[in-house]
Parts: sequence; structure tokens; C-alpha cells
Amino acid sequence: MVERIARLAGSDPRVEVGIGDDAAVLAGGLVLSTDMHVEGVHFRRETLTAAEIGARAAAANLSDLAAMGAEPICLLLALGIPPDFGEIDALVEGIATHEVALAGGDLSRADSLMVSITAVGRAARPVLRSGGRPGDRLVVTGPLGTQAASGYTAPIVPRLAEGAELAGVATAMIDLSDGIATDLRRLAAASGCGARVELAALPVAEGATQEQAACGGEDHELLAAVPVEAPLPAWAIVIGELTGGGAVEFLDAAGVSLDLHGYDHFA
Amino acid sequence: MVERIARLAGSDPRVEVGIGDDAAVLAGGLVLSTDMHVEGVHFRRETLTAAEIGARAAAANLSDLAAMGAEPICLLLALGIPPDFGEIDALVEGIATHEVALAGGDLSRADSLMVSITAVGRAARPVLRSGGRPGDRLVVTGPLGTQAASGYTAPIVPRLAEGAELAGVATAMIDLSDGIATDLRRLAAASGCGARVELAALPVAEGATQEQAACGGEDHELLAAVPVEAPLPAWAIVIGELTGGGAVEFLDAAGVSLDLHGYDHFA
Repeated sequence: MVERIARLAGSDPRVEVGIGDDAAVLAGGLVLSTDMHVEGVHFRRETLTAAEIGARAAAANLSDLAAMGAEPICLLLALGIPPDFGEIDALVEGIATHEVALAGGDLSRADSLMVSITAVGRAARPVLRSGGRPGDRLVVTGPLGTQAASGYTAPIVPRLAEGAELAGVATAMIDLSDGIATDLRRLAAASGCGARVELAALPVAEGATQEQAACGGEDHELLAAVPVEAPLPAWAIVIGELTGGGAVEFLDAAGVSLDLHGYDHFA
Repeated sequence: MVERIARLAGSDPRVEVGIGDDAAVLAGGLVLSTDMHVEGVHFRRETLTAAEIGARAAAANLSDLAAMGAEPICLLLALGIPPDFGEIDALVEGIATHEVALAGGDLSRADSLMVSITAVGRAARPVLRSGGRPGDRLVVTGPLGTQAASGYTAPIVPRLAEGAELAGVATAMIDLSDGIATDLRRLAAASGCGARVELAALPVAEGATQEQAACGGEDHELLAAVPVEAPLPAWAIVIGELTGGGAVEFLDAAGVSLDLHGYDHFA
């Protein structure tokens, strides 16, 4: 869907990376990302407190900065507030748990609760989705399926320190917001590569199934491509590699490629 | 309402101006503003085309940059799309009429149409609301009441060139989004001043009443405070002055101070 916007987006020499990566990059290394969380689509008020809704929305945005290897500077908040929602302070306090300053805000009435955040950061060397090369190892920063297994209520930890460390070695990086089955395809396509992942190599979160690890959304672990000659951080979990072909294959124990798909907010 | 967020916003030395002005200012002169437009609150689909909705939302955001004297660099868009809305392309084309690059975007399903935009710009000398001094002339950039008289359907022109020119002489500046009756109070309070405006001096837009000129929202003309010794641009319209007292007075022909109030999206 975002591709429809990108086609009409125009260009500016001061915008070095525009729509289509985890975040935009301006000349000078400023990194910007906008993400929207809507009640009934991304969360339900029955299963999350107001503080948790705020914390999750901010975490998802900060994760986009992490995926560029950027350090956060500030957040801007646009909040749509339905008549029966009175916990604005708790929601903002949830955002504030990430200890990133809120530099701007706009409030409006709305039919349902809507939290739109813009995260602003800086990266000395922003890592795009597009730099991966055949043979690069694919690594993730932690277990997958945590969110699907928890009914999308587990706290989200943006992998900012890990993203900054990977920025020193990674050729490509993305955050896993829609499941690795979807997001690996995005990284591979942007890099002009294929990919091969052994499902048995996926780190499955406690309580999650292998399918939840491969297809569940919102984990916000990072997926990076790292050349074989580069050192890996000790915590990095290798799950496969980029290939020269165009296909992205998830192989089961018998070596059969499965047709896996991640989460789609419009489906 | 935004004050509730500001109290919880935290701080960062890289954020020079945070919540409470037209836009945030980061070290280095980067200017950022977030604004949200919600169907049924800011616009109705019965009276505006999709392109007009996009153009208005972007204009309101760019107007916040204008009010800081900033030049736009790019916009980021978060779009909440109800099931019966199919004109995404037209809406984005409306945004693109302002010829500022869209550097980021996020789409989601939503119950009603919601357009949240973050505008990013740069100002060599950002003009805040807080620098006005008693005796400064109050000037506006154009006629007031245009929007109220048109039922909030007239095109909005962000006063970017005027804002940049005023930045050379103004001590304080704000964009008139909620009516001068409200926004002058904001500028005066931030500057620790009072203000006196002769209603007869307000430039009333064609077809508008004096009350619409004083109290109507969304005109997005700029209001600036300019010291008496500074030269005024030829197009600047003087409507009154800042005073040393705390009161903000709108005086009728008999010199009586009227209790005027602008537009409140939560009322």
C-alpha cells in the first residue's frame, strides 16, 4: 500500500532516503519515521492499558530508528481521542517510559483511539534495506513469535543498542514488524537478492509455535544481513543467508520450501 | 489540552524548543511540526474532495513551519483509511500540490478518515511565540475570516514566503489556526505581554463578518509582533500592539473591550 504513496511522493535532494525503507534519511544523517496505531486494528482497549498502548506505539516507532542504526533524539505525537477515553496522561506516561523527549504534540477528537508518532533520530551510517549481497549471513536480535504467542500484549523492546552495534557491520537491516516471512522478502527484494532460511534455525520464543515465529507480527526484533568476513555480535542469531537467486525460501526439516506469509494490517 | 502532554514530555538538550510553540526546534535549526486532521472534526467528505482534504492538511502543517520562519524540507504522512474511502491517490496528489517531498508514510485501516502529517523544515533564526515586547506592532499577513465565510472549504495558502520575510524583523510569530481571538492570547501569554487590537483594524475577508474575522478558525494567516523601529514588509497589515499589562483587549468602535473567543476543536 505504501508503494502507492511513494509513486506520488516527489523528491528533494535533501531527502537521501524516502518512502520504502524503515525510515527516511535527510542529508546530514537525520532519520525520521512515522507510524500510526489505531484502535481495533493495532490494539484493543480491552487487552491493553492506556500506558501499554502508549509504550507499544512509541516502541514500534523507535524500532524503525533502531533498524537504521540510529540514535533517537525526540518523538512527536498526534493523538486522536474518542469521547469515552479519559486516560491521556497515562498514555503519554507510557510513551515516556522509553525516555525519549516528546518535542511536539497535537490532539483531536476522533471516533476511535489513534496514536500517530513521528520518531526523529540521527545515524552516522544509516543502514538501508538495500545493501545486502549474496552470501551475507542473516541474523536476528532475539526470539520470534513473542507477540503472536502473547496475543499482542507483551511489552515491545526497541532494539536500539543492537541496531547501533549492527550498523557497524550490516549491509542491510529491517525491523520485524509484520513477521519475518514478510519482512525478509522486503529486505531481499530491496537488496536484489534471494534468501534461504532453515525454519529449524529460527529462535522460537517461549510459548510460541514455529508458525508464530515465522509469520507473527509486531515482534520488532531486527533482521540484518552481515557479510561472512565481518564479526558478529555475541548475541546475534544466524538464521540463514542471502542468495543470488530471486526466491525467498523457508525450508522445513525435509528441505521443502514452504509458502509462508506474515501479517497484513489490510487483510 | 496540549499542555497536558507538555507536562509529561521530558526534555533533551538537543530539543531547543518543545511542545507549546507552533513547531519544535532542534539544535542546528531543524523545525518539526505534527498536525492531525480528522473527518467529522476538521473536515467533512461531503464538502471537500479527497485532493482538497490532502491539500488542506498539508497546508495547515506547512503553516506551522511558516510561523517559525522556516523553509520546508519534507513531509511525513500517516493516513487512517475507512473501508469506504478509495481515493488515496487523489488525497496524496492534493498534498503534493504544495511541492514539498513526501519522505515517509504509513497507512492503516481506521473508522474514519484521518490525515496526520509531520512537516520538517529549517530556519536560520526560528521565531518563537515568546519574544514579543510591549510596544511591538501586531501585524497579520492577509484577510481574516476567509475560512469561516467559506464554510471551511476555501483553499489554504501557507504563508511561507511571508514567514521567512517576517523572520528578519519579528520578535514573536504564530499562525492563526484557531482565530485571532485565541491565537493572539497565546502569543501575548508566551511573550508575557498584554495586547490591544481595534476590531475596526482587522482586515475582514470578502464575504466574512467582523466576528468571523476575529473568531473563525483555520485562516492560517500569520500574526507577528514587530518592534516599532523595524521596517515592515509592504504587505503587512497592522492591527494593534502588544502592551505591558496582562490583558488582551479587542476594542469595538466605542472603545469597549469585547469578550471574544476563537475556535476550539474540543468544544
